[in-house]
Amino acid sequence: MPKFQGVVPPVVTPYNADFSVDYSSYTRVLEHLIGGGCHGLFVLGSTSEVTFFDEATRRKILEHTVKVVNGRVPVITGVLDPATDRVISHAKVAQSIGVDAVVATAPFYTITSQSEILEHFRILRGALDLPVIAYDIPVCVHVKLARQTVVTLAREGALAGLKDSSGDDGNFRYVLFDLADDKDFFLMTGSEIVVDSVLQMGAHGVVPGLANVDPHGYVRLWDAAQKGDWTAAKKEQERLCRLFEIVWVAAGRVSGGATGVGGFKTAMRSLGIIDTNAMARPRQPLNDAEAKGVDDILRAVGLK
Amino acid sequence: MPKFQGVVPPVVTPYNADFSVDYSSYTRVLEHLIGGGCHGLFVLGSTSEVTFFDEATRRKILEHTVKVVNGRVPVITGVLDPATDRVISHAKVAQSIGVDAVVATAPFYTITSQSEILEHFRILRGALDLPVIAYDIPVCVHVKLARQTVVTLAREGALAGLKDSSGDDGNFRYVLFDLADDKDFFLMTGSEIVVDSVLQMGAHGVVPGLANVDPHGYVRLWDAAQKGDWTAAKKEQERLCRLFEIVWVAAGRVSGGATGVGGFKTAMRSLGIIDTNAMARPRQPLNDAEAKGVDDILRAVGLK
Amino acid sequence: MPKFQGVVPPVVTPYNADFSVDYSSYTRVLEHLIGGGCHGLFVLGSTSEVTFFDEATRRKILEHTVKVVNGRVPVITGVLDPATDRVISHAKVAQSIGVDAVVATAPFYTITSQSEILEHFRILRGALDLPVIAYDIPVCVHVKLARQTVVTLAREGALAGLKDSSGDDGNFRYVLFDLADDKDFFLMTGSEIVVDSVLQMGAHGVVPGLANVDPHGYVRLWDAAQKGDWTAAKKEQERLCRLFEIVWVAAGRVSGGATGVGGFKTAMRSLGIIDTNAMARPRQPLNDAEAKGVDDILRAVGLK
Amino acid sequence: MPKFQGVVPPVVTPYNADFSVDYSSYTRVLEHLIGGGCHGLFVLGSTSEVTFFDEATRRKILEHTVKVVNGRVPVITGVLDPATDRVISHAKVAQSIGVDAVVATAPFYTITSQSEILEHFRILRGALDLPVIAYDIPVCVHVKLARQTVVTLAREGALAGLKDSSGDDGNFRYVLFDLADDKDFFLMTGSEIVVDSVLQMGAHGVVPGLANVDPHGYVRLWDAAQKGDWTAAKKEQERLCRLFEIVWVAAGRVSGGATGVGGFKTAMRSLGIIDTNAMARPRQPLNDAEAKGVDDILRAVGLK
Repeated sequence: MPKFQGVVPPVVTPYNADFSVDYSSYTRVLEHLIGGGCHGLFVLGSTSEVTFFDEATRRKILEHTVKVVNGRVPVITGVLDPATDRVISHAKVAQSIGVDAVVATAPFYTITSQSEILEHFRILRGALDLPVIAYDIPVCVHVKLARQTVVTLAREGALAGLKDSSGDDGNFRYVLFDLADDKDFFLMTGSEIVVDSVLQMGAHGVVPGLANVDPHGYVRLWDAAQKGDWTAAKKEQERLCRLFEIVWVAAGRVSGGATGVGGFKTAMRSLGIIDTNAMARPRQPLNDAEAKGVDDILRAVGLK
Repeated sequence: MPKFQGVVPPVVTPYNADFSVDYSSYTRVLEHLIGGGCHGLFVLGSTSEVTFFDEATRRKILEHTVKVVNGRVPVITGVLDPATDRVISHAKVAQSIGVDAVVATAPFYTITSQSEILEHFRILRGALDLPVIAYDIPVCVHVKLARQTVVTLAREGALAGLKDSSGDDGNFRYVLFDLADDKDFFLMTGSEIVVDSVLQMGAHGVVPGLANVDPHGYVRLWDAAQKGDWTAAKKEQERLCRLFEIVWVAAGRVSGGATGVGGFKTAMRSLGIIDTNAMARPRQPLNDAEAKGVDDILRAVGLK
Repeated sequence: MPKFQGVVPPVVTPYNADFSVDYSSYTRVLEHLIGGGCHGLFVLGSTSEVTFFDEATRRKILEHTVKVVNGRVPVITGVLDPATDRVISHAKVAQSIGVDAVVATAPFYTITSQSEILEHFRILRGALDLPVIAYDIPVCVHVKLARQTVVTLAREGALAGLKDSSGDDGNFRYVLFDLADDKDFFLMTGSEIVVDSVLQMGAHGVVPGLANVDPHGYVRLWDAAQKGDWTAAKKEQERLCRLFEIVWVAAGRVSGGATGVGGFKTAMRSLGIIDTNAMARPRQPLNDAEAKGVDDILRAVGLK
Repeated sequence: MPKFQGVVPPVVTPYNADFSVDYSSYTRVLEHLIGGGCHGLFVLGSTSEVTFFDEATRRKILEHTVKVVNGRVPVITGVLDPATDRVISHAKVAQSIGVDAVVATAPFYTITSQSEILEHFRILRGALDLPVIAYDIPVCVHVKLARQTVVTLAREGALAGLKDSSGDDGNFRYVLFDLADDKDFFLMTGSEIVVDSVLQMGAHGVVPGLANVDPHGYVRLWDAAQKGDWTAAKKEQERLCRLFEIVWVAAGRVSGGATGVGGFKTAMRSLGIIDTNAMARPRQPLNDAEAKGVDDILRAVGLK
């Protein structure tokens, strides 16, 4: 089995009211996730609001994470920034701090191409001494990692895995087929709501932002899938789908970026995991009426 | 008249073969542009490949620029990065170095909204002591600055100007109407190929990447427009349109991001302004056959 | 259980070399599908090339279909055209010929909205005496039927079912939840490659173009799913995924519209089901080299 | 000079309250446009709501138009429908009725390609005996006619002209350059708000929906441009831009398709040109409050 597998949540970064990182709450988040049975942690992913952080903040978050986790589960980290050399720079810091793997997107802001993406990941591979995982998230990067791009890079050894947040589960399935004989390469889905389906296809792991709110639910789903009990997996998934509706409570009022993370943070505050539901500027947090809507959902699924 | 006006090229950043900035060539570019009659310089814009640069590189480029320019023309600088606080951080460095204004986009990578964009620029305004110019470039940022967003921010004094690279000249015209009574606000187009039209609409300036290759052409176009000689302006614009075809010589082979800057750099190398046509990694430079195609165009328009 | 369920292929329309419908081959297609165990037929869908047909051709195809099928399985028909009254006109013809239901998209070419789509389907409902099924295919119609739009129309009785070719299986799942208490409403997926997943979510049927080539495969998949044998369902789905690669054999050379239907028709010709692989003008058929590629795939999955 | 030039409005189709065509009002529209000095008429374009009409309605509109116009100005007609043979069918009817040219888009609903578009127009050319004009309107057709596609078809004689509603005036300019030596080919812009610019580039005509409301304004703009009086052209254009804001009065409440034509029809009703502001189903007309907003604008520009 691949080294990275199972439930690997993209960890939320709690904020103080002054927009600094609330490390006390952050520690609680990490313990909440490890205690919830998660098999690994993905820090500095999109859900962490990483692209809002400068280098010093990223470093401090990583150092704090590695210290708190202390080897209990693997830690993988996003090294998200617009272009290759900046990604390498983040990755070298991460490497020095002692994470287990890095996760990189294609270049963004710039208009790129599949051949440039191949070059990008080959350069990363040549510059780094730890596994590189490709992150496919077209809604943010505005390019899709083509099936052939991922397979080529996997065959060359440039990529150790894929985190697929593209929503294109049919394509994901073909990548699984193409790399079925590669026992080391792992494929993870970023979905929260079709995890049972993607695990049944053969995915090695799942990276659901919603696990910040309910890690136990995703671990139960994973365990059911491991046993081949697809009925139980489906039942748990359906409960989590109901919970996932917290991400739409503020839809329309706040931005598409704020509604999801804002829903997670508001639920986590309500459950006592973090102290505020503040997000990085200029994101607007959920208001009291929306927080009440989140609470209604938490109660409906038995979390409150 | 607004402080910033006229031909204000987004300055190309020359590279050494090892992907470090070639400051010797860069100095030549600056002198080429000032000597060509440009009315200001826009450094660290998209054409500069700014999103590929870390903070130290940006700082060094700005310091070098301010030193070489030495007050001969205004220097405005891009402070492009995915989110508000990182933009502020770049802008404070720029402010300390002594630029005349900063240019910022909406947040990118994250999925944003017009109300979040309003908040973003208000926060920038509150944090900085120099003029802030909004940069509308949906092809990179994947959101359009709405007419009402720009007008609201201008009325509040949060924005000093707009650089419009959206290609939506009709919308640009409406912003001109809405702010016609604001004598300080200035509107610049990022177009290379409909500059005569946009100047006739009343734009205060133009920021054409192609001016790195032929500043004299855009200055002639500007001068003709200032005199109301639209026939001469059109004639010069048509010559520059022909020159602009250098950006499509490598289309299809290299990425959409590389084909434009790559065309500029290849032409500038051919004209002896810079030493290499290397671009930031992972962009692939134009090859010899493509460089020959660029030369053919340079000859056709009388630059070679 | 809903009246329409199971494997309901969107029937391919075979052509003569002169671009007229080849009714002899068409009869063979219908028998091939019924003989293959399909539970219903969806004629004049996107796969049929319906938008290329005028009213007379559509009428003749429907009359031929109803006569050949002769009540052996339900026949539902697409009534696809850009706007409401034209859709009604097609639907009234279909009604008079004796089909069991009609399938309509949102208006296209015109720029529409969810409230206009609500109105559109309410008008259809008021004008027709047979079940209306909504067809969600944003890749052609360029608008997505929102979850709330479908649910509202279902609750009002304006819609009898949904055919979802949007690829957004997460959204499909929420529509299933919302309408779980409506025993008559049925949800079908247009997917060819994640059918096992969507059936496990609770979908009532599947409308795979690929079933024109291999109806037995999809019927086996359906039967396995009905028994809850998800391992068998997955195995059959994976075989069909391999077969589905026929749709990419000509990708790049012919249009995105031609590559899929062209792949199906070329395979069906190779299997002796139809006489030519011609498509409606201006689509270009697959060439001999591509037909050889299709044959390789047919052999690989045991169909040849 | 090309045969088709000047101001050629896309004629609005007035409706009765029962959604039938109001031919009495329609006659008044035609007289209003001819009397306003328009140089030609484009019937059954997007503004006419043509895609909502069946064959019989289209035929009747064309017959009525040709009879009323009676050779006073050229009449060109849209033959818009999803695919080639249906376009030919419409065009043959139009040809038999005696129009001067037909206007066709690329295929829509189907996913097409530039090579298929080439084939499409070549087939049209071979089937018809009157000039064929290409209609580039990506917001409806969802594909852009590439510069090379238009130029190739022009060189072959397959196209007599281009109506460009793409908003990409830079590309339009290049097509003008490429075909500068073809004295018969004509290029028209569909813009309402940058007509002065596009005429200065060398366009041969303009097809503004807004001319249904104010033909005199566009004729004055055209006349000023013909004299090279760009200052007067700009002044008239700016007045028309102010008038054009009627298309946004209902934005957000009605669909993107309804807001524009709805604004035109509401203004025309207010000016006594037509009897109702009804649009084809399922479009919702402007309400009383919105009609008041339209009136305010009509007064502001001196039309009321």
